[in-house]
Amino acid sequence: MKQFLDEDFILSTDAAKKLYHEYAETMPILDYHCHLNPREIYEDVKFDNITQVWLGGDHYKWRQMRSNGVEEKYITGDASDREKFQKWAETLEVAIGNPLYHWSHLELKRFFGYDGYLNGETAEEVWNLCNKKLQNGLTARKMIKMSNVTLVCTTDDPIDSLEWHKKIAEDETFDVRILPAWRPDKAMYIEKPDYADYLKKLSKISGVTVNSFASLKEALKKRMDFFAENGCTVSDHGLPYVMYEPASEGELEEIFAKRLAGDMLTAMEERKFKTAFMIAMGREYHERNWVMQLHYGVKRDNNGKIFGELGPDAGIDCISNYAPSAEMADYLNVLAKDDKLPKTIIYSLNPSDDAAIGTIIGCFQDSSAIGKIQQGSAWWFNDNKTGMINQMTSLANLGLLGNFVGMLTDSRSFLSYTRHEYFRRIMCDLIGGWVENGEYPADWKTLEKIVKGISYNNAVRYFGFDL
Amino acid sequence: MKQFLDEDFILSTDAAKKLYHEYAETMPILDYHCHLNPREIYEDVKFDNITQVWLGGDHYKWRQMRSNGVEEKYITGDASDREKFQKWAETLEVAIGNPLYHWSHLELKRFFGYDGYLNGETAEEVWNLCNKKLQNGLTARKMIKMSNVTLVCTTDDPIDSLEWHKKIAEDETFDVRILPAWRPDKAMYIEKPDYADYLKKLSKISGVTVNSFASLKEALKKRMDFFAENGCTVSDHGLPYVMYEPASEGELEEIFAKRLAGDMLTAMEERKFKTAFMIAMGREYHERNWVMQLHYGVKRDNNGKIFGELGPDAGIDCISNYAPSAEMADYLNVLAKDDKLPKTIIYSLNPSDDAAIGTIIGCFQDSSAIGKIQQGSAWWFNDNKTGMINQMTSLANLGLLGNFVGMLTDSRSFLSYTRHEYFRRIMCDLIGGWVENGEYPADWKTLEKIVKGISYNNAVRYFGFDL
Amino acid sequence: MKQFLDEDFILSTDAAKKLYHEYAETMPILDYHCHLNPREIYEDVKFDNITQVWLGGDHYKWRQMRSNGVEEKYITGDASDREKFQKWAETLEVAIGNPLYHWSHLELKRFFGYDGYLNGETAEEVWNLCNKKLQNGLTARKMIKMSNVTLVCTTDDPIDSLEWHKKIAEDETFDVRILPAWRPDKAMYIEKPDYADYLKKLSKISGVTVNSFASLKEALKKRMDFFAENGCTVSDHGLPYVMYEPASEGELEEIFAKRLAGDMLTAMEERKFKTAFMIAMGREYHERNWVMQLHYGVKRDNNGKIFGELGPDAGIDCISNYAPSAEMADYLNVLAKDDKLPKTIIYSLNPSDDAAIGTIIGCFQDSSAIGKIQQGSAWWFNDNKTGMINQMTSLANLGLLGNFVGMLTDSRSFLSYTRHEYFRRIMCDLIGGWVENGEYPADWKTLEKIVKGISYNNAVRYFGFDL
Repeated sequence: MKQFLDEDFILSTDAAKKLYHEYAETMPILDYHCHLNPREIYEDVKFDNITQVWLGGDHYKWRQMRSNGVEEKYITGDASDREKFQKWAETLEVAIGNPLYHWSHLELKRFFGYDGYLNGETAEEVWNLCNKKLQNGLTARKMIKMSNVTLVCTTDDPIDSLEWHKKIAEDETFDVRILPAWRPDKAMYIEKPDYADYLKKLSKISGVTVNSFASLKEALKKRMDFFAENGCTVSDHGLPYVMYEPASEGELEEIFAKRLAGDMLTAMEERKFKTAFMIAMGREYHERNWVMQLHYGVKRDNNGKIFGELGPDAGIDCISNYAPSAEMADYLNVLAKDDKLPKTIIYSLNPSDDAAIGTIIGCFQDSSAIGKIQQGSAWWFNDNKTGMINQMTSLANLGLLGNFVGMLTDSRSFLSYTRHEYFRRIMCDLIGGWVENGEYPADWKTLEKIVKGISYNNAVRYFGFDL
Repeated sequence: MKQFLDEDFILSTDAAKKLYHEYAETMPILDYHCHLNPREIYEDVKFDNITQVWLGGDHYKWRQMRSNGVEEKYITGDASDREKFQKWAETLEVAIGNPLYHWSHLELKRFFGYDGYLNGETAEEVWNLCNKKLQNGLTARKMIKMSNVTLVCTTDDPIDSLEWHKKIAEDETFDVRILPAWRPDKAMYIEKPDYADYLKKLSKISGVTVNSFASLKEALKKRMDFFAENGCTVSDHGLPYVMYEPASEGELEEIFAKRLAGDMLTAMEERKFKTAFMIAMGREYHERNWVMQLHYGVKRDNNGKIFGELGPDAGIDCISNYAPSAEMADYLNVLAKDDKLPKTIIYSLNPSDDAAIGTIIGCFQDSSAIGKIQQGSAWWFNDNKTGMINQMTSLANLGLLGNFVGMLTDSRSFLSYTRHEYFRRIMCDLIGGWVENGEYPADWKTLEKIVKGISYNNAVRYFGFDL
Repeated sequence: MKQFLDEDFILSTDAAKKLYHEYAETMPILDYHCHLNPREIYEDVKFDNITQVWLGGDHYKWRQMRSNGVEEKYITGDASDREKFQKWAETLEVAIGNPLYHWSHLELKRFFGYDGYLNGETAEEVWNLCNKKLQNGLTARKMIKMSNVTLVCTTDDPIDSLEWHKKIAEDETFDVRILPAWRPDKAMYIEKPDYADYLKKLSKISGVTVNSFASLKEALKKRMDFFAENGCTVSDHGLPYVMYEPASEGELEEIFAKRLAGDMLTAMEERKFKTAFMIAMGREYHERNWVMQLHYGVKRDNNGKIFGELGPDAGIDCISNYAPSAEMADYLNVLAKDDKLPKTIIYSLNPSDDAAIGTIIGCFQDSSAIGKIQQGSAWWFNDNKTGMINQMTSLANLGLLGNFVGMLTDSRSFLSYTRHEYFRRIMCDLIGGWVENGEYPADWKTLEKIVKGISYNNAVRYFGFDL
């Protein structure tokens, strides 16, 4: 029986151990998509205790605590941080097989040097150990540096001033590059009640009065220029599904005008607008050689009671399984047919979409980039051992695993960098298994290139960062 | 090479063997959902031969016999029981990898002490052995008692008199609790030709004249009171999919009146009625602290020829893959937002829904029960090793496996209790594998709690039975 | 660590090795569905070099080369064959886990005796070795004979003269039977611009003037008679999904007349026509005891730029995930209810359909054939180790794996027969694993029957070929 979380955690063959320890383990991290707060990085935020780091905003953990029958008071309410930690420790005990079990213990081991396992009984010991470290220099920047991160892309709205990114760039005491990424969802969600307000803010900051679809695109282009000046080369979109409902320019202007007049759009009008928006964005990204990330398959804010109390990102999101692959293919084609398709990474929250995505990306590859169209790493609810194995196996079967740009954290927490270790161990176990079983030759030179590529080098090449 | 079906059947690691033999094996069975006939239990039915038990109503076996080219005469027709048994034995031989292969041999071993394997050649020997036991005391009640069952929930229509449940309750010679469960499908399937007839029967037995949607709900409440008096705390629904199409009370009464007048409803009207029906039921269950079970994803009675000859439950049902997860989330939310969502167990016949369900249940958990919203155990066509591993792995990845209420038989046969053994072996092999691989600590105290919980204790706690 | 591609490739247990080497390995091949060109067989085509065989028309490989950033010039363009081969060799290196990695090396080993592995560095050596063999007698017929093939069904249009099939039949120097298979897609795709032209050709060759739906069916029946005279007993259809939208004969004639008049049909009219077409075909196949193959779940020609340059079959197809299982069940039922359902094999490109198909086929089995309704072997993008394991596991769980008709090549290449070896190894590893783990008895007599059945004998029995 293997010891829990020992040095060969997840690595079940000799080939896997060699691949991980010799090639993957020491590679740096390029975190090309996350939700870290640049201000917290600039200010090098300190935490009083582990509850602040772990339970402050982590809706993954909130869900599991609710699943364990924990009262909301101990989750997002006014119980003490120590009490909340106790409830989390007790919840973790029954989270057998859950990625949070592994993530939490990897974080305890790597950042706090804790070798045991957390449960209701050890909670006090862990609480004291972690808090001591947090109060003695384990700050946000320290966590990033300990993780061997070279570059981070945050997630930013077009109207963001990028003030904190600029300050970090000017701060010579911190050598990790923290770049903005472009996420214009608020400019697309035309059905939202505050859409007009958003357009006002966009008008102001861009200097372009947004009173038409054409001027909206113009304003966004100005902001893209500004983002580019600050090092942005990556975009990101959150979509219910990747849709394709074409419309003429005239029709689109009518739709936009109707909404500006305060009227609500029909479902069809909304789809036409969003399709046109995504086409316009795709063309711009291609023009600028940016990467387009498409995240889809989510239905958000499902529990009206909790949403009323906590608002968005409260652990009440689920998979939406409506996602016609035909529309996604048509959307990509409307760009590809005119040679305007940017480098693209596609993520679905529904793991049943893996195969469809794998076959679609193969239709749009070309020589403008190696692995131009990518299936993104197993995302959010799929970000676990099963999900990663499935995503990489599907990608290997349908495309070129060797060109995969690999892992990202997608996290709000500075401790989440151990997810890269988790990913790399799983990746090495998968590939090592093939080598061990004679399904790929023990050609270590090529294997080194592949493993280091998926760990780090492919992403450097793909995004074109000068690292 | 392991012997077929030896004592460590399915258990591939030392940890798995320990978990099963020390913790799971001897736990009792709580069968919270099945289709046993309470009259047969009361009358302690005896069987002349194994064909009566195995092939009398088991459409799982009928399908496989047809797949083997067996004539209907030998399946549901007028061939002799011995001939039918022969055909089944010959079919089983090619059912390699099928759960029926394992179920049948577990039943032969546990109930009849047969250690070999059944095929065309051994059929005569098995026939004689089984029939001897059946004719010498292996009755319905004996099978239940041998299986260490403490409580059974049958499946009952609101108009059922519960006569047999009452008689069993009064029979002091039988200490297994046999409780009714509430399945009001006939009150919801408004499109059926005999809907008006059904309402007449419901009116009569409830004492409420059903001439409106309001009075339908009133009549059902009376019957729920009656079921509750007889120990019912569990409901069950069979749905094509979990739908959400809201309508006003006025509109609903118009729809109901239209149908009562003999007219057929539009598809939209039907969906509105069924949505409202399910909302009303959900609220009542919450009021009474009952558990709501939702079984969906089925298309029934697909082969017109066989249906014409045999009617329903003839082995001609299949998966319906239309099931928008968004509607299921909206249905649960319409109850949850007003704090009226009962404890709920969700089962889909489509295994591709596992992940969507796993993410939806996490949105609606709260402190009113531990593991309040559950994904049900792998159901019907998924009730096999692959399906169970997938369901438990998905649940572990997305929620808290440690709180899972575990297995049920969903069967018409008294021999099906070996399915619990099958489930527990698979569950212990899954969890044992994690322990063996260092993915969960060898913390036997916690593991005992988890394994005994999933085997039995979680269900006792969840349903609130006094056992 | 196992050697790459050694004699026990894929075979991980002793039972698997025994099953493969003693039973499966030497069975002949019945290739009941492929896209080989009968003219090339008749003319016993010779190849100058390995690029012609491997990259001439293999869109599987083209996709992967594009994924590796290779310029189109080196894929389908005017680069030299040697240059193209180099690019392919370099691409293969990163195709870790991809079936092309295994297929390519199996082909190199079995047909060319090459034991190493192909990459950028060994490309020259492999190029020389292969070309020498190709130029010294390794012709199309030789490849077929080396593979121990007894019978091949090609894929042919109703208007095909079957000239080459006839010539092969008359050629006594070649003892492999090369039979036509009926693929009337062009007669069904009523929306195509050249539909009227196609009908003219069909009218001419059938001698029936096609000016109505009734006469279309009449003309096709004449052609089916002609195909039958030439040994055809198998049909094949390519469908976006298996649809069911019933219409009256009158309505269908109106739809057909409208299209003949040059008008475009509505989506609903198209669906009605195609449904009726498929019903008519199914009845005819039943009448003639032909096998009906349904291939669905594809969206073709997605990249407008590449399609404009290369036309169809250019490696730009993907999964379409719209395929309501309810319609497929209804389509099969409309035939089955009147006892007109032929033997049928169902293939979906979407692996998420496995379970739905597995449950549907079970509804329509009867005693007119053993395993009458089949789920086809993992198709196209699913034709890899994962896909085959999933398809066979699903089939085993839901039906009778022992009656499976097994593998086909579906290929345009004479080298693809090694895919049967790949399939058989995977099948033996799956079944052997069950035996090794005590999940099926070590009943070698039955196992031999099952393994030889799936390898070859079941297909012989199912298609009714006199072999």
